[in-house]
Amino acid sequence: MRALVYNGPKDVSVENVPDAAVEKPTDVVVKVTATNICGSDLHMYEGRTDIEPGSVFGHENLGEVVEVGTGVQNLQVGQRVCLPFNIGCGFCNNCERGLTAFCLSIHPPAAGGAYGYADMGPYRGGQAEYLQVPHADFNALVLPEDSVEKENDYAMLSDIFPTGWHGTRLAKLEPGETIAIYGAGPVGTMAGYSAVLQGASRVFVIDHIPERLELAERFGAVGIDANDGDPVEQIMEATEGRGVDRGVEAVGYQAHDVEGNERPNMTMNALVEVVKPTGGIGVVGVFLPQDPGASDELARNGQLAFDFGKFFFKGQSMGTGQANVKAYNRRLCNLIHQGKATPSRLVSHNLGLADAPTAYRDFDNRERGWTKVVLNPTNG
Amino acid sequence: MRALVYNGPKDVSVENVPDAAVEKPTDVVVKVTATNICGSDLHMYEGRTDIEPGSVFGHENLGEVVEVGTGVQNLQVGQRVCLPFNIGCGFCNNCERGLTAFCLSIHPPAAGGAYGYADMGPYRGGQAEYLQVPHADFNALVLPEDSVEKENDYAMLSDIFPTGWHGTRLAKLEPGETIAIYGAGPVGTMAGYSAVLQGASRVFVIDHIPERLELAERFGAVGIDANDGDPVEQIMEATEGRGVDRGVEAVGYQAHDVEGNERPNMTMNALVEVVKPTGGIGVVGVFLPQDPGASDELARNGQLAFDFGKFFFKGQSMGTGQANVKAYNRRLCNLIHQGKATPSRLVSHNLGLADAPTAYRDFDNRERGWTKVVLNPTNG
Amino acid sequence: MRALVYNGPKDVSVENVPDAAVEKPTDVVVKVTATNICGSDLHMYEGRTDIEPGSVFGHENLGEVVEVGTGVQNLQVGQRVCLPFNIGCGFCNNCERGLTAFCLSIHPPAAGGAYGYADMGPYRGGQAEYLQVPHADFNALVLPEDSVEKENDYAMLSDIFPTGWHGTRLAKLEPGETIAIYGAGPVGTMAGYSAVLQGASRVFVIDHIPERLELAERFGAVGIDANDGDPVEQIMEATEGRGVDRGVEAVGYQAHDVEGNERPNMTMNALVEVVKPTGGIGVVGVFLPQDPGASDELARNGQLAFDFGKFFFKGQSMGTGQANVKAYNRRLCNLIHQGKATPSRLVSHNLGLADAPTAYRDFDNRERGWTKVVLNPTNG
Amino acid sequence: MRALVYNGPKDVSVENVPDAAVEKPTDVVVKVTATNICGSDLHMYEGRTDIEPGSVFGHENLGEVVEVGTGVQNLQVGQRVCLPFNIGCGFCNNCERGLTAFCLSIHPPAAGGAYGYADMGPYRGGQAEYLQVPHADFNALVLPEDSVEKENDYAMLSDIFPTGWHGTRLAKLEPGETIAIYGAGPVGTMAGYSAVLQGASRVFVIDHIPERLELAERFGAVGIDANDGDPVEQIMEATEGRGVDRGVEAVGYQAHDVEGNERPNMTMNALVEVVKPTGGIGVVGVFLPQDPGASDELARNGQLAFDFGKFFFKGQSMGTGQANVKAYNRRLCNLIHQGKATPSRLVSHNLGLADAPTAYRDFDNRERGWTKVVLNPTNG
Repeated sequence: MRALVYNGPKDVSVENVPDAAVEKPTDVVVKVTATNICGSDLHMYEGRTDIEPGSVFGHENLGEVVEVGTGVQNLQVGQRVCLPFNIGCGFCNNCERGLTAFCLSIHPPAAGGAYGYADMGPYRGGQAEYLQVPHADFNALVLPEDSVEKENDYAMLSDIFPTGWHGTRLAKLEPGETIAIYGAGPVGTMAGYSAVLQGASRVFVIDHIPERLELAERFGAVGIDANDGDPVEQIMEATEGRGVDRGVEAVGYQAHDVEGNERPNMTMNALVEVVKPTGGIGVVGVFLPQDPGASDELARNGQLAFDFGKFFFKGQSMGTGQANVKAYNRRLCNLIHQGKATPSRLVSHNLGLADAPTAYRDFDNRERGWTKVVLNPTNG
Repeated sequence: MRALVYNGPKDVSVENVPDAAVEKPTDVVVKVTATNICGSDLHMYEGRTDIEPGSVFGHENLGEVVEVGTGVQNLQVGQRVCLPFNIGCGFCNNCERGLTAFCLSIHPPAAGGAYGYADMGPYRGGQAEYLQVPHADFNALVLPEDSVEKENDYAMLSDIFPTGWHGTRLAKLEPGETIAIYGAGPVGTMAGYSAVLQGASRVFVIDHIPERLELAERFGAVGIDANDGDPVEQIMEATEGRGVDRGVEAVGYQAHDVEGNERPNMTMNALVEVVKPTGGIGVVGVFLPQDPGASDELARNGQLAFDFGKFFFKGQSMGTGQANVKAYNRRLCNLIHQGKATPSRLVSHNLGLADAPTAYRDFDNRERGWTKVVLNPTNG
Repeated sequence: MRALVYNGPKDVSVENVPDAAVEKPTDVVVKVTATNICGSDLHMYEGRTDIEPGSVFGHENLGEVVEVGTGVQNLQVGQRVCLPFNIGCGFCNNCERGLTAFCLSIHPPAAGGAYGYADMGPYRGGQAEYLQVPHADFNALVLPEDSVEKENDYAMLSDIFPTGWHGTRLAKLEPGETIAIYGAGPVGTMAGYSAVLQGASRVFVIDHIPERLELAERFGAVGIDANDGDPVEQIMEATEGRGVDRGVEAVGYQAHDVEGNERPNMTMNALVEVVKPTGGIGVVGVFLPQDPGASDELARNGQLAFDFGKFFFKGQSMGTGQANVKAYNRRLCNLIHQGKATPSRLVSHNLGLADAPTAYRDFDNRERGWTKVVLNPTNG
Repeated sequence: MRALVYNGPKDVSVENVPDAAVEKPTDVVVKVTATNICGSDLHMYEGRTDIEPGSVFGHENLGEVVEVGTGVQNLQVGQRVCLPFNIGCGFCNNCERGLTAFCLSIHPPAAGGAYGYADMGPYRGGQAEYLQVPHADFNALVLPEDSVEKENDYAMLSDIFPTGWHGTRLAKLEPGETIAIYGAGPVGTMAGYSAVLQGASRVFVIDHIPERLELAERFGAVGIDANDGDPVEQIMEATEGRGVDRGVEAVGYQAHDVEGNERPNMTMNALVEVVKPTGGIGVVGVFLPQDPGASDELARNGQLAFDFGKFFFKGQSMGTGQANVKAYNRRLCNLIHQGKATPSRLVSHNLGLADAPTAYRDFDNRERGWTKVVLNPTNG
């Protein structure tokens, strides 16, 4: 089968690779019809991870079941399914409590596995014609009958819509409350959209790229442009000095200030400042235990100079980590199916697999207008 | 009336001060019969805060109502009451949600006030014959008929028993789970006891002072002596490499390693290490937004070099801050009354007010055997 | 001052009554500018309660503070406030946990008190020029600066908007779930609106009066007309046999079937049927411990022939009772202030106090078009 | 293999039956070493269900894995495991949320399946030498190394210990609260023990059989003997008229009063009476949707004459249904392993399979001293 293969830094190409197959009785094979490029794919593309040449990326996958293992009970050939980016077994200590992003049996001794991702296990990604899906009964979300028509919407269920939603849950957002979200990338925008859908009274999204802020505003948020002054001060003024009830970090360890300097602790310390005492913060932007290429000692060791004293004094709480996609995808699927949510408005490009190499290049260059790319391998 | 007065660093004396009085219709005056010396009183005693000479310490108070304001509804002269160390109004945005440690109206614009404490408002402490209690209907917990007999138990309801309990709730402990608590001082010991009472399967308490560890063990915990090697490794070994489900920080910003070096980030980073992925951490040890006298730049600014990358990667959560005493004191009072809890086992000394100056000196010197001091002003 | 006075069954008139006054230091007096007629006022109007002639009705009140007791801290003359219908003290065992509808000190030995209501204490209602407000710091919600312009919206915060919202919380509704609400009166309509605002994927509201169903649909719900066949079957068909995740009872003990027969257990048993296994049911329609005038033995004793076996077998849960208004009113106020919620669309009439007697008559006759009446005493 | 076979009402015998086998790749076969007789087995034994002759009972099973399907990942031959009585698939809408007692795929269209039980699917019970376990990775709890020594303790994890615990969770018990439990049979006793382990301040267990009350008291509860007067009055007196915070129903639809009359609504209405306003009730005693043999019309239709008006007026909540055993068994296993819980104190008899027919007869006759029977098929 054909697949997008990583050859080395900034070098990917479409190649023939061994077919995806049912290897264990609980596997299925899915013919991929939509597979998104994620911002975290760019980390690997840029060569900043230890992923090996020959790897196939793609952890945001949707498609049609074409082969079913003998131990699979509830899936049939022909069903269309969306796959959470993190792979769970369904029965370990964490999966049984819904903590599927931290599955203990899928890639031990680590907690958690994913398709096509550095350090997340041997699972090939879905930027290809076919995808092998382990523990398929547990992982595959069977889609409603409008799954072709709304494919771009349902494709967002694999990662960024649940991940944005997770940020608001980690922050313990309640209807009627206010929230500030750092970062208007796809995840931050989806966090803002999630807050709107849950009945937040005001949703601030902070970025310094006007195009991104416009997108977040189209989903119902209030954009805060860091070019217009300290975002914390802007929000403090907008809230008459009270700050916000909740905050979400959707930028991660490579945060840059408006002058372009990398400042890893900028977003977290700003959130501690802008969130009210007793407020909650959800962290879904990626932070790494080590970052060998970082410029300063703390960052190399995965540490932040964090305003812990203020955080404690304000009695704030914080939740972190990858989204347990299965905790949310079924209900978000309902919202899409009933016409109450349309995350596909985020998608800027639908391309064939053959277009993927140039798509990676342009997306990585942050070309204007590239907000979210969906690859459709069945379209060439 | 007589009160213990702060004259300057390491200098306190018993003096005559103006009588406590009902100033607002919602006040009562309490004749203090038990008032504890808290570890945080020693911070002020040592001169490391900006509290003014002439101040009266004492935020852990219990006594008898002797005068009642005209706007007080439910309290009568003669009732015995225990007062939470943090003073709430009962009706602000935070108090109405039970977040009484962050009352918005008691010492604005700060969130939260307390008796006899630096930067916590103009409220005089209870290491005196009498205490003025604001918003008395809301703040006073009326004690059961055995309040004299079990005074040392009920006196622990003003602060350390609820504070230790709060640590376990911030960590989201569930019955059957395991927990590690950093610090076997009064708060850490009470956190361990709280975990035992809630049905934890294993409770580890970490310290390097054997006497403290013995005390924690008497309350049902397993002591981990830092002198015997890295506490994280000891607990990892005891848990077959799994770590613990939950962690509590009960040391604060002045943590020292076994060599006696101040290492403010030692306890938090150890907890991130020893708590399992998806686990929760409760922070009740005090961390400060600024610490001008600290030895390094980060600490002076109230920052920790915090293992944020690992914290995120493990998907952990953290809750912090002073205990909302009223969230717990009524039910802990029930446990004491029914003979299910006896926190008084922590108390090493019952002394009169006249003994307070020497008690401060000896307690501050960490003299052997001084675990918790209760002053009884009515005993001289 | 002038007030609407109850003289006997179906007989109310505007009379002079003693002025509202500050009696306790914690009271304020409010000049009433909006006071709604509630469906439960009609129970008293019809003479089916033991309320005494001379009583003043009105538990849904909003107005301006005109006098402040000496023990009140945070309210000033001139502020505009909305009052929860249930009066809490703020400091009893229940109020301190936010269970303000079950205040233990406001009307002992009962749990809970209200303005102008049978068996809910000696508190005069607000269908008058002025209202005495006990424990004013705790009970009064200070309104934003647009409180005149949006008075009809904010007036809904006193009861029916929070009560409808409470129904969805008792049912444990989560975003993306489905819900069925029995009754499209003001409370049922507000329950449906609350579900919409919280991100429910489908909201069914059941009634047999087309005009009410139209109103519920304007708030985003799907109307189920009982005249078109068994509502349970209609919803089962609409959900492909799965039923709904959650249910709300907003009718109460006087439920009638489409033939006009009183069937007190109709709505609850239908909800047990239509809610899926493990689903939750919230009950905010009023059921009485005794109903002496009821036609059958069970109802007279406040009992229902309840499908308990099916309820258990399906593993459902149920929450009941009057709304703890303060648990919701501040956040719902935010939604109104930010333009995210407009419950005033429910209001059909704004009338002066002089119009109240005819308003009671017409509203009680269920005249077409009378959905919700707001009295504005300052308008005559 | 040998198994206890049901021949008809009050007639069981040990017979040869076809061997248990791996039929699906996700199955394992377990050699049963402990299998309890449950009170609900007696319902079938007495012929009051529609279970067919030839059936094998036994839903409380523990044993050793002896054969493993090709799709099983985490189990090996030789491991000792305890099986929850309810069988889940691990991946349906309910199982993925932990609602394993209501699995949607194990016995459709019903919600929920079990071993050897009427109307709970085709799964043969474990009162036999071997047991076929479906979805074994999900259902089998691997036991610690002391599983032989503490077999009677771990055998309680299959049903009654988690079921009793579930009752307290449905009632929303918090540490320090009081609770009343109707029924001192094995489930009620375990509910009482669960409350004690969670830190309840007072635990009342109500029954009219002194021997049962003694057993409940040995687990830390206070026995309330219905022969000594109305249990509600006894508890009201013991709580100074306040009633209890929480209640648990552990009797079910066949409740009898002290005169021996069947009164199905007795326990629920007593709980509504004795639980305080805003309190919670957990129902784990079995109630049936139909009971054709019942003496009155309501009971035949699975209805109770329930004090709904009082229940609503008090603002109580109720949770019901079979226990989601997997929600609790891992943590309760930890408590047993660490010596913090010893539910085996309930066990009165350990017998071989050959003794089962007489054991059924004596247990069904409620012979004195028969509290809980464990069959050990490997012992003959």
